[in-house]
Amino acid sequence: MKVRVTVSLKDGVLDPQGKAISHALHVLEFPEVREVRTGKVIELDLEETDPGRAEQRARQMAENLLANQVIEDFVVEILK
Amino acid sequence: MKVRVTVSLKDGVLDPQGKAISHALHVLEFPEVREVRTGKVIELDLEETDPGRAEQRARQMAENLLANQVIEDFVVEILK
Repeated sequence: MKVRVTVSLKDGVLDPQGKAISHALHVLEFPEVREVRTGKVIELDLEETDPGRAEQRARQMAENLLANQVIEDFVVEILK
Repeated sequence: MKVRVTVSLKDGVLDPQGKAISHALHVLEFPEVREVRTGKVIELDLEETDPGRAEQRARQMAENLLANQVIEDFVVEILK
């Protein structure tokens, strides 16, 4: 079963990488860019056939390793 | 208008970060993890109200800056 965990910075947390991308896009003549926020996607292939159980385990993995919950939020989606 | 660009490594391209996460998850007693692939999410807030045009511009940004198309694929989604 494939599961996607998307980790993004919480609102209010500075995102220097996003700022750098925003600046570069302005230089490249994309003046319509107002703000850029960056994050990570982690796609997990699990030996697990029950979607509920796969989601629960992926959530534990995110809490224990993938996300730093002081500054990051995460979303778990079942892909197939 | 908010647009999400998800950049992931093409199939067959080595993903050392994914391998490291996979190893760490095994150590943390998640033996059901078969494979891990990592990628980036870039959320763009654009001064653009037409969804078709916003998608087209985000695609150009991905081709010019956000993705390295030799080793990476990207997907553009309109959020709102």
